[in-house]
Amino acid sequence: MSLLVVGSVALDTIHTPMGTAEDALGGSATHFSAAASLFCPVQLVGVVGDDYPVDDLQFLADRGVDLDGLARAQGESFRWSGLYSADLNSRETLETRLGVFADFQPRIPERFREADWVFLGNIHPELQLDVLRQIRRPRLVAADTMNFWISGNRDTVLELLGQVDLLLVNDDEARELSREWNLARAARWIQEQGPRYVIIKKGQHGAMLWTPSGPFVAPGFPLEDVCDPTGAGDSFAGGFMGYLAQAGRAEDGDLRRAMIYGSVLGSFAVERFGLDRLRDLGGEEIEERARAFRELVAFELAVGVDAGL
Amino acid sequence: MSLLVVGSVALDTIHTPMGTAEDALGGSATHFSAAASLFCPVQLVGVVGDDYPVDDLQFLADRGVDLDGLARAQGESFRWSGLYSADLNSRETLETRLGVFADFQPRIPERFREADWVFLGNIHPELQLDVLRQIRRPRLVAADTMNFWISGNRDTVLELLGQVDLLLVNDDEARELSREWNLARAARWIQEQGPRYVIIKKGQHGAMLWTPSGPFVAPGFPLEDVCDPTGAGDSFAGGFMGYLAQAGRAEDGDLRRAMIYGSVLGSFAVERFGLDRLRDLGGEEIEERARAFRELVAFELAVGVDAGL
Repeated sequence: MSLLVVGSVALDTIHTPMGTAEDALGGSATHFSAAASLFCPVQLVGVVGDDYPVDDLQFLADRGVDLDGLARAQGESFRWSGLYSADLNSRETLETRLGVFADFQPRIPERFREADWVFLGNIHPELQLDVLRQIRRPRLVAADTMNFWISGNRDTVLELLGQVDLLLVNDDEARELSREWNLARAARWIQEQGPRYVIIKKGQHGAMLWTPSGPFVAPGFPLEDVCDPTGAGDSFAGGFMGYLAQAGRAEDGDLRRAMIYGSVLGSFAVERFGLDRLRDLGGEEIEERARAFRELVAFELAVGVDAGL
Repeated sequence: MSLLVVGSVALDTIHTPMGTAEDALGGSATHFSAAASLFCPVQLVGVVGDDYPVDDLQFLADRGVDLDGLARAQGESFRWSGLYSADLNSRETLETRLGVFADFQPRIPERFREADWVFLGNIHPELQLDVLRQIRRPRLVAADTMNFWISGNRDTVLELLGQVDLLLVNDDEARELSREWNLARAARWIQEQGPRYVIIKKGQHGAMLWTPSGPFVAPGFPLEDVCDPTGAGDSFAGGFMGYLAQAGRAEDGDLRRAMIYGSVLGSFAVERFGLDRLRDLGGEEIEERARAFRELVAFELAVGVDAGL
């Protein structure tokens, strides 16, 4: 049940209507690991500069995140700063300083190369392909990407699609990649390029999964208090992959449950800044919210057999 | 199980990327009745001009829509014309000619006044209140409204909220009415003004219901081919209220099923222009899509008890 993640480890300065967080722990691999490690051990590959507060990642190590793949390079860590709109539905990037992340060349430690479950966070698709060349016989590889690579490195993204089992993108990315406005058509187009499974994230509107046997929808959780959407997608991915790795299989029912656990972790992640909410999250809270998701969509078509409602 | 609807009866000229429909049968009461009459008899109150092709409404009469409340006034019928964007998510109104609808004064025929289930389509809130003064002891009254009335007649809309059981609006309307960006807070605010139940429609992202016992989400159906979104919300309302009237009660489980049947009717309505899809829709197709909705959200939290997936 080994789960490998390769991605960014960053420091985020985030402005939302709820306040500001300076140099919060961030990056795709960090958010992913914080979520996934609530389900199973995680192997993290990334890079930080010599300014990174590595000790602050100790809580991840304490719950089973193997940080031996976290390279420390001379120079500044990846820093991102953003300002969210009043409704939290859009954001403006104030500053991006790639620092040592600009020269990131993922080197997978020998004992990580047997990982069964692999998540390729949003990095250059050439580097994602390079990771695939280093690992041996994964059971399921999922990849994220973004508009920057889709428009600038389309052929490499398409090559990647031929080599992964699952693509996880948001609605805008799915549209730009497939050149289809309709998300059902976009998902089908992506499946035709290779991935057996496609997940399209829609922010507050939830997420959709397409498998060969059809679509599944996990709703957005109707939170009254949202603090910081940063990392929600990677927290979703961490909950999704963490659940699958823990289950040790990916049948249709497992994938549906994984969508719910991904949604649960995404919904917790946004309640506070950075990793603050996932840091102290407990298993009972996770199960309680998973039951709330079930209640949120539960219905029976025939009268009289829904006594549980 | 009598179901009364009061609203507009119009002729729509609609331009979408799929084509153009000229003078298609439209209006809130028309779309509502086409959907609701698949579940139960409907009593329609509205007005048309002397140019309206009333014979084209015969298929509604044939399936139990009582048109005795449809007044015919001298002058032109309400006409609306709109142009949808390439992604069908937004539209521009090209022309609105209110015609005889400008002077609409709903007069509820005596035998309609005992209606158990009442839907107040999107008309001036003063007229909606006037309808409530004419009816006797309805079991459930639902109302729609729009930004035009919320901004221009806010006090009257608030007075209406104190007298209805259910408000059905889209997300923008809920936000403008409550002055809350967050939809969960918006729904709670609306409930505090009077309605026990609130439905917030989110177009392709589905619809949410809030009851005193919590929220319920009906997902958007992932259609690959959408032709014309006009009237989808009123078709949803018709399926929702039609199901409740047929069931003869509105317990929590009934309301959840009604949300699904509303979503089913909304999803069919957009497949063709105007009323074209609902005109020939059959009960078996409705049940089949309701089962597809169940499959779309079905999951079990515990492994091993989801053999049905």
